[in-house]
Amino acid sequence: MTKLGVGVIGCGYWGPNLVRNFQRHPESQVVTVCDREIERASRVASEYRVPTVCDQAEDVFANPEVSLVVVATPTFTHHALAKSAIEAGKHVLVMKPLTGRLDHAEELCAMAERQGVLLAVDHTFLFTGAVRKMRQLIVDGAIGQIYYFDSVRINLGLIQTDVNVIWDLAPHDVSILDYLIRNEPVQVQAIGAAHGGSPTENLAYLNVRYDDSLLGHVHVNWLAPAKIRRTIVGGSKRMMVYDDMEPSEKLRVYDKGFTTEQPGSENGYKLLISYRSGDMHAPKLDASEALAVEVANVVGAIGGRNDLMADGVAGLRVVRILEGAQRSLELGGLPVRLDSNALAER
Amino acid sequence: MTKLGVGVIGCGYWGPNLVRNFQRHPESQVVTVCDREIERASRVASEYRVPTVCDQAEDVFANPEVSLVVVATPTFTHHALAKSAIEAGKHVLVMKPLTGRLDHAEELCAMAERQGVLLAVDHTFLFTGAVRKMRQLIVDGAIGQIYYFDSVRINLGLIQTDVNVIWDLAPHDVSILDYLIRNEPVQVQAIGAAHGGSPTENLAYLNVRYDDSLLGHVHVNWLAPAKIRRTIVGGSKRMMVYDDMEPSEKLRVYDKGFTTEQPGSENGYKLLISYRSGDMHAPKLDASEALAVEVANVVGAIGGRNDLMADGVAGLRVVRILEGAQRSLELGGLPVRLDSNALAER
Amino acid sequence: MTKLGVGVIGCGYWGPNLVRNFQRHPESQVVTVCDREIERASRVASEYRVPTVCDQAEDVFANPEVSLVVVATPTFTHHALAKSAIEAGKHVLVMKPLTGRLDHAEELCAMAERQGVLLAVDHTFLFTGAVRKMRQLIVDGAIGQIYYFDSVRINLGLIQTDVNVIWDLAPHDVSILDYLIRNEPVQVQAIGAAHGGSPTENLAYLNVRYDDSLLGHVHVNWLAPAKIRRTIVGGSKRMMVYDDMEPSEKLRVYDKGFTTEQPGSENGYKLLISYRSGDMHAPKLDASEALAVEVANVVGAIGGRNDLMADGVAGLRVVRILEGAQRSLELGGLPVRLDSNALAER
Amino acid sequence: MTKLGVGVIGCGYWGPNLVRNFQRHPESQVVTVCDREIERASRVASEYRVPTVCDQAEDVFANPEVSLVVVATPTFTHHALAKSAIEAGKHVLVMKPLTGRLDHAEELCAMAERQGVLLAVDHTFLFTGAVRKMRQLIVDGAIGQIYYFDSVRINLGLIQTDVNVIWDLAPHDVSILDYLIRNEPVQVQAIGAAHGGSPTENLAYLNVRYDDSLLGHVHVNWLAPAKIRRTIVGGSKRMMVYDDMEPSEKLRVYDKGFTTEQPGSENGYKLLISYRSGDMHAPKLDASEALAVEVANVVGAIGGRNDLMADGVAGLRVVRILEGAQRSLELGGLPVRLDSNALAER
Repeated sequence: MTKLGVGVIGCGYWGPNLVRNFQRHPESQVVTVCDREIERASRVASEYRVPTVCDQAEDVFANPEVSLVVVATPTFTHHALAKSAIEAGKHVLVMKPLTGRLDHAEELCAMAERQGVLLAVDHTFLFTGAVRKMRQLIVDGAIGQIYYFDSVRINLGLIQTDVNVIWDLAPHDVSILDYLIRNEPVQVQAIGAAHGGSPTENLAYLNVRYDDSLLGHVHVNWLAPAKIRRTIVGGSKRMMVYDDMEPSEKLRVYDKGFTTEQPGSENGYKLLISYRSGDMHAPKLDASEALAVEVANVVGAIGGRNDLMADGVAGLRVVRILEGAQRSLELGGLPVRLDSNALAER
Repeated sequence: MTKLGVGVIGCGYWGPNLVRNFQRHPESQVVTVCDREIERASRVASEYRVPTVCDQAEDVFANPEVSLVVVATPTFTHHALAKSAIEAGKHVLVMKPLTGRLDHAEELCAMAERQGVLLAVDHTFLFTGAVRKMRQLIVDGAIGQIYYFDSVRINLGLIQTDVNVIWDLAPHDVSILDYLIRNEPVQVQAIGAAHGGSPTENLAYLNVRYDDSLLGHVHVNWLAPAKIRRTIVGGSKRMMVYDDMEPSEKLRVYDKGFTTEQPGSENGYKLLISYRSGDMHAPKLDASEALAVEVANVVGAIGGRNDLMADGVAGLRVVRILEGAQRSLELGGLPVRLDSNALAER
Repeated sequence: MTKLGVGVIGCGYWGPNLVRNFQRHPESQVVTVCDREIERASRVASEYRVPTVCDQAEDVFANPEVSLVVVATPTFTHHALAKSAIEAGKHVLVMKPLTGRLDHAEELCAMAERQGVLLAVDHTFLFTGAVRKMRQLIVDGAIGQIYYFDSVRINLGLIQTDVNVIWDLAPHDVSILDYLIRNEPVQVQAIGAAHGGSPTENLAYLNVRYDDSLLGHVHVNWLAPAKIRRTIVGGSKRMMVYDDMEPSEKLRVYDKGFTTEQPGSENGYKLLISYRSGDMHAPKLDASEALAVEVANVVGAIGGRNDLMADGVAGLRVVRILEGAQRSLELGGLPVRLDSNALAER
Repeated sequence: MTKLGVGVIGCGYWGPNLVRNFQRHPESQVVTVCDREIERASRVASEYRVPTVCDQAEDVFANPEVSLVVVATPTFTHHALAKSAIEAGKHVLVMKPLTGRLDHAEELCAMAERQGVLLAVDHTFLFTGAVRKMRQLIVDGAIGQIYYFDSVRINLGLIQTDVNVIWDLAPHDVSILDYLIRNEPVQVQAIGAAHGGSPTENLAYLNVRYDDSLLGHVHVNWLAPAKIRRTIVGGSKRMMVYDDMEPSEKLRVYDKGFTTEQPGSENGYKLLISYRSGDMHAPKLDASEALAVEVANVVGAIGGRNDLMADGVAGLRVVRILEGAQRSLELGGLPVRLDSNALAER
């Protein structure tokens, strides 16, 4: 069997993790790594035994051994690089967020479809044992109707100066939201602040609304004294808390809730409320490295054996929310409607 | 020395705690308790040795032994009861929130000033050791410029059907915000949702904006599986976390922060960021019951020995934010400007 | 129906809690309270509407309305008071520990049996929802063979000067151990230290051994900076952690363990070990106040409707371990055999 | 400058970490790695660019480029390997515990002194920021007289079948105890149990006694459902809790304590106790990898620039306690006196 040839562009913080996982997968093999600073590419190549390096992305696109291009560069370069890769007939895996503009994401999705190549996006958190278990519990009906999604991702640093905290951290939360809810949001709002002389917002709050009463809320913050990574999903049957800072039992499922009852007309204005507070359950989670599961998913999808868990359209949905949030931020928190037509047409 | 005569109206959940604390204070004495259900009043009177009971508020106002009327009834009754008490020449202490409408709060403040009586509001949390210490650290300059105030107050129950979660829980957070920040907010926004057949919102997010980049945010929620009571105040010099669920060390002060530096013009677009992560300090807090401190503050203020920590104007400022939040909620999250003129005129 | 008449001797820290609970129970009624300081008795009588008070225990024993005598005095007085109560034909409930000497406990058990009255001991923790659930899980076979019992009960204060930390705190842990294990220990060891000029040990470690490999261990400490109240029970099938400092989910049951397998002779010296790490489960616990459950148990036992959960013999078993621990402490930690003959004869 | 040549014997779990750190240090260089399974040695050599490999320890001893031999093999081999290395005139760093027998440790210390080479022991935890800070606080007098040392190191797995849990886990706690207390213990006791068909004890309790009332206690356990790594040091002035499972603020220093006062003769039997409960402080800790600090210490000591923080005699002291504990374990928990003569003679 021939292994899937992979070319990785970008050897900064995240790229080497992808190289490592594609090298470790039995059916893929990194054939080249590329970075504008060739020394960085060489270091990565040496550590993970990648045969060739380059400092021009064009060399990756032109390499006939490369079937999958991994784009692990800053967001503003995603569109151009992914576009060229698709044009060269390569499958593409792009870091989150897919692009910095919605129209760019739409263009990439359309192109990939035309070219018959796969476009995947690195929504890493979807591949954790915790998020997959949350999804399964929702699909199995254990959670009931979802009432709200509340996610907090805060700590001190690493402040970016080219993107704000929404584009840097919120893609994690928004991609989890999108994966769990699987519903088209209609409106987004965001507020934020840029403190301490920073040119970009270093803390922000997003909320995402749907046709029904479901509410999504995300708090991202680079200026917090303690590290919190906690997502709560409240449902009509059960509630889940995913606390990524816990060393074990990261996901806790609470058999808690309430019911309301409208009694007869004689005292009809008085609603009867009953609470239910039962057991808490922390299911055993798959402890595989998320990136390894993701790599297996991408390699399998290219091989035709499974669907992509995070395809270009998922990336596009996330970018639509982020772009709406950015617009709302610039409008001082005004609600921004999300137009889902473009997507619906597909 | 004659003790301050106190009359307490309302013997539900909170009233008895006030009775207990006024009875325990050496300079005050509850002379009557009042409740529409006279048995409730009798039970409280018996437990705390209050000499008389009644079921008509008018009897309290007419009682010449009563110098201070405590209003511990549902919010919608505050205005009428406090107004009558002030007209009767009594000092008044009103439960939070002061009123359910801003104009009502304004009227009460103006009346109290005209009548020369004290109008106090029961912002209990201000009297905790933790919040007083936070205030002191801010006043002492230890926190520096305040960047943000983020407060989460969530758990399961006790769902109210006559008021929503904003009017029920957020007065705690907003009164702490007001006490710590001491600055006029210019805008408020709120979103929320009413789930499970509830007629009122059972979860909501508020944000409060100021002239500068300071951001206040409050998450209140009756539908959360775990109880969280946590307020973070981020400043330019230090950051504070007040976690009321901790059995001890409820307040933690982190010597953490960052500085930005604009280097010379040759690479002027690149901001240099330095992080500072030093010691964490949990100062010893006064463990007195908050209500006992509050009662001492009110008794002392009536005796002319100290200022009120939470006067009618503080209550009014909190109601202004809550009312603005309510309006924003009804407008689907649109920002609502807060007009501070009425107050400024005083 | 005539209510059970209760007389309570001792109105210090714990006595009033028992008065409150016997008053609240529909089938019992405190008819007199007694304390050497008559004002303390009067205060308690007034708060809980007890008709008579006295400062001589004899008056309680002589009171024909008293069927049950509650002994809530310091340990060194338990034997004499309980003995007189039994001689007067009363049922008796004695605070923990039952007595300060094993022979005294034996005498009380024998007397109660002869007199045909019930002798109960206030092992309060057995009546918590957590300990009852632990017992149930053991009885149901969910835990398997019990491997060890490890209990830590430490915090700062309240240092006693008449008894050491073993007699003050360890009765809680040892009574839980006795209740869960239901097996005769054969040996006990204890070490401790008296720091800071204290005349009695303020920290100590006990271990309790059985015929099989089960090991019980208790750490009690008045000089610890943080409050820890945690009991771990390790079994062959599951393990339980009871953390009394948790605000909720106090009991956590872990589906964790390991199995060993002796492979064939070719590499027989190498044991194969497999670990099992499954779900964690925090069962909903009965949140009733432990003392209310205990009072119901005692009242029911006197009424012939149920057995005592903590009878004199349970108290005796705990005293036997404590006395052995005390002897070991004085012997510098030498193991002390526990003779179970006296008990076995019954 | 010529770099210090290092030869590492043993490429199992821990060896590669040492290779990595000696390679990273600017003044040392691993020149050969050795393992009985040559493939393991090759893998490590390849990853960390070590020029030569071998499967015979003799080749390391005979290698003239090797000045320091690192012994990272199972405990039962330490004595023979370290002895040969010392005889070959090499400095030696031995994994913990130094040896499995006290006389072996004594022999190695004596030999190293005679040969004029350095004998170091890998007591890794001493080099963590937390333990170094604890030591500094003790030296500075901030803790006062040390009352007790209580260390818990428990979790599920990794059960060993050739050594028991005392020899596997307790060297960490005992080496910290030895480093912080710096006093000769006089007696040790241990109890333990071997559950589930294991040939060796998988849980154990040790206590270590000194001439004064100081008490050291260690709980090590392979069968615990939750991972706990917590050391408490109680002193007359302050108390410290080192919780290695905390993601940050691993060391907390509590300004807590008590004083006793013997009042005048009129009520002389009643000791007055005053508690002190002040601030808690979590000092910023050096976050350097402990092994990097250790390697720098060893390289510096060989270069004559500093003392060894953990020399052979420290290793010997730890082995003496472990061997005493083992003997006590075999005697069913009888106290075992520790003879310090052999050491004192030096």
